[in-house]
Amino acid sequence: MFYKIEHNDIGTSARAGVITTDHGTFETPIFMPVGTAGTVKAMHQRELEQEADAPIILGNTYHLYLRPGLNIIEQAGGLHKFIGWKRSILTDSGGFQVYSLSGIRKINEEGVKFKSHIDGSAHFFTPESVMDIQRTIGADIVMAFDECTPYPCEYEYARKSMEMTHRWLGRCVTRMAETEPKYGYQQHLFPIVQGSVYKDLRLKSAEVIAEAGCVGNAIGGLSVGEPAEEMYAMSELVCSVLPKDKPRYLMGVGTPENLLENIALGIDMFDCVMPTRNARNGMLFTTQGIINIRNKKWENDFTPLDQGLDIYLNDYYTKAYVRHLVHNNEMLGAQIATIQNISFYLWLMREARKQIVAGTFREWKERMVKQCMQRL
Amino acid sequence: MFYKIEHNDIGTSARAGVITTDHGTFETPIFMPVGTAGTVKAMHQRELEQEADAPIILGNTYHLYLRPGLNIIEQAGGLHKFIGWKRSILTDSGGFQVYSLSGIRKINEEGVKFKSHIDGSAHFFTPESVMDIQRTIGADIVMAFDECTPYPCEYEYARKSMEMTHRWLGRCVTRMAETEPKYGYQQHLFPIVQGSVYKDLRLKSAEVIAEAGCVGNAIGGLSVGEPAEEMYAMSELVCSVLPKDKPRYLMGVGTPENLLENIALGIDMFDCVMPTRNARNGMLFTTQGIINIRNKKWENDFTPLDQGLDIYLNDYYTKAYVRHLVHNNEMLGAQIATIQNISFYLWLMREARKQIVAGTFREWKERMVKQCMQRL
Ligand SMILES: [Zn+2]
Ligand SMILES: [Zn+2]
Repeated sequence: MFYKIEHNDIGTSARAGVITTDHGTFETPIFMPVGTAGTVKAMHQRELEQEADAPIILGNTYHLYLRPGLNIIEQAGGLHKFIGWKRSILTDSGGFQVYSLSGIRKINEEGVKFKSHIDGSAHFFTPESVMDIQRTIGADIVMAFDECTPYPCEYEYARKSMEMTHRWLGRCVTRMAETEPKYGYQQHLFPIVQGSVYKDLRLKSAEVIAEAGCVGNAIGGLSVGEPAEEMYAMSELVCSVLPKDKPRYLMGVGTPENLLENIALGIDMFDCVMPTRNARNGMLFTTQGIINIRNKKWENDFTPLDQGLDIYLNDYYTKAYVRHLVHNNEMLGAQIATIQNISFYLWLMREARKQIVAGTFREWKERMVKQCMQRL
Repeated sequence: MFYKIEHNDIGTSARAGVITTDHGTFETPIFMPVGTAGTVKAMHQRELEQEADAPIILGNTYHLYLRPGLNIIEQAGGLHKFIGWKRSILTDSGGFQVYSLSGIRKINEEGVKFKSHIDGSAHFFTPESVMDIQRTIGADIVMAFDECTPYPCEYEYARKSMEMTHRWLGRCVTRMAETEPKYGYQQHLFPIVQGSVYKDLRLKSAEVIAEAGCVGNAIGGLSVGEPAEEMYAMSELVCSVLPKDKPRYLMGVGTPENLLENIALGIDMFDCVMPTRNARNGMLFTTQGIINIRNKKWENDFTPLDQGLDIYLNDYYTKAYVRHLVHNNEMLGAQIATIQNISFYLWLMREARKQIVAGTFREWKERMVKQCMQRL
């Protein structure tokens, strides 16, 4: 079985579950660190395993397709082997990057024409080609090819785009059924709910996606600039339609607060560049609150980064030291901050799960959101 | 005892020794990774301990003095505590950076006036102030303040500079004698032989330095652009004068070949930015030879970086993957390459020592120089 619920929260719609892929079993809710081009920036694979204990990471189809390219990944025997990662991987469909990174693109029913943001070369993604690409990359969970609408987005555009995304889903499902995994382990397709911030569209989309009967479902097109309240409203609405016995993945979300609020609404999986990207800018997420380590106030603070986290960093490094490193653009600053943020995000998911199981999630969430979102 | 020789090589002047500081005992010959501003770039302290097994690292007085500054380091309780490094540290005198990094400087008998390369602020280093600075930084081994002459250097300039360096040494020794360590452990002063590439000057300088009676001695002003043969000639000459029962430190050297040749001449300690700096440019030092990992030939080489090294990197990463990372300027590429290069340099020192003890150093060196210096 791909997904199993072990516990439903009493006070919220949160669930404690378990997902099993051919690369392991892991507990949900889960946060997936983003490994864009086959690397979670500034972090060693062993650190992801041993420090953060991340059971699954995300790869970006768009980036991997351009570099190193499918030929290299296939020769390596798939992405797991290429990057030295033995646990699970999810790849997105490349759609989001095609829209956000590639300047020139043309979308029509057949697919998307775009130019590489690296060398300007022309490429064409279709639902079929993107399934083939993800077969070659070899992730355990692959995403359907969709159009991710921007925010704000006019109703008519959002409706037409959503309907095309639904038609594309049919083509993705067909292609996956017609093709075999290349490396001897299963790959699971997740379809994506779209519909911008329009309730009727989201409801409709959730119904279509639920009917596809995939082992898990995703919600896309959120966390693209809309107010958090709109995100939560859409998430709640969509969760009310998506099947309860399948994991729900909210794409590209978000802050620790966003994660906890969405867990309460019934979301099980998340990914976001925030903990890694912000780490490189000196923003630390900790159990005690948010730290801008560039701030002069940390200059002579010789306490560990986060005493609420049982993490080896605390045996070596202090806030003053990390401040010095980040202030001087030393790579080690970004390395330490990334381990901290990713470890914290994974800790937050494990802790949330414990609270769900213990029946204390609701109160804990209120307290934890206040605590970890405060600026130190 | 600070230094003890355990074995003298039969076929060369190489020695296998042991150095003891208040932060531990380590074997020589030794290579000290350069931790310029309190970080060996791209490498975690734990990796230096556990992967490379580096017993001592180097800090740059010039950089540390400017950032984070003495105030912060002193509040932290010294550099060891500030950076989370429990083993030994050596700091240079700042002289080399004052000459190479700071644009405007004026040298006279009293000291050196210079401007910070960071903010242009004016500073004045004297032999006394540099001893005081190194007291505050708190390294186990501190270096005398010298003038490091460029290459080429006119005889008269080299002679006068050397004589001033000798007078400065007297002031350094006096200042160290008049002051106490700040953190409860001993600090040992090493004087520095200068004299450019002039035999009579080097001989004279070696005599003066030997007479100072310090627990170890250094050779500076080499590896500044002169041919390797001139470096070896100077090194041999100086080693013939410096006391045998004290460790000899050749500053700023060098390639694996330079290290092995100088070990044969009687050198015990080295430092160089080459393994770390070149790592960040994609040049890998391995037991099998030198790899430019940017080269297209590694694109689909799925073998470990260096099968001759027993290193955890080999359980995760391949040449093709590291090529991909470096090619895409991913930080992890620099991180992996740095661990490889520093681990190799430390391995080379441990291996050289084994061969000295076994009486096979000379043949091994000839073979190893050919092997590890070839371009793969
Ligand atoms: Zn995000
Ligand atoms: Zn050097």
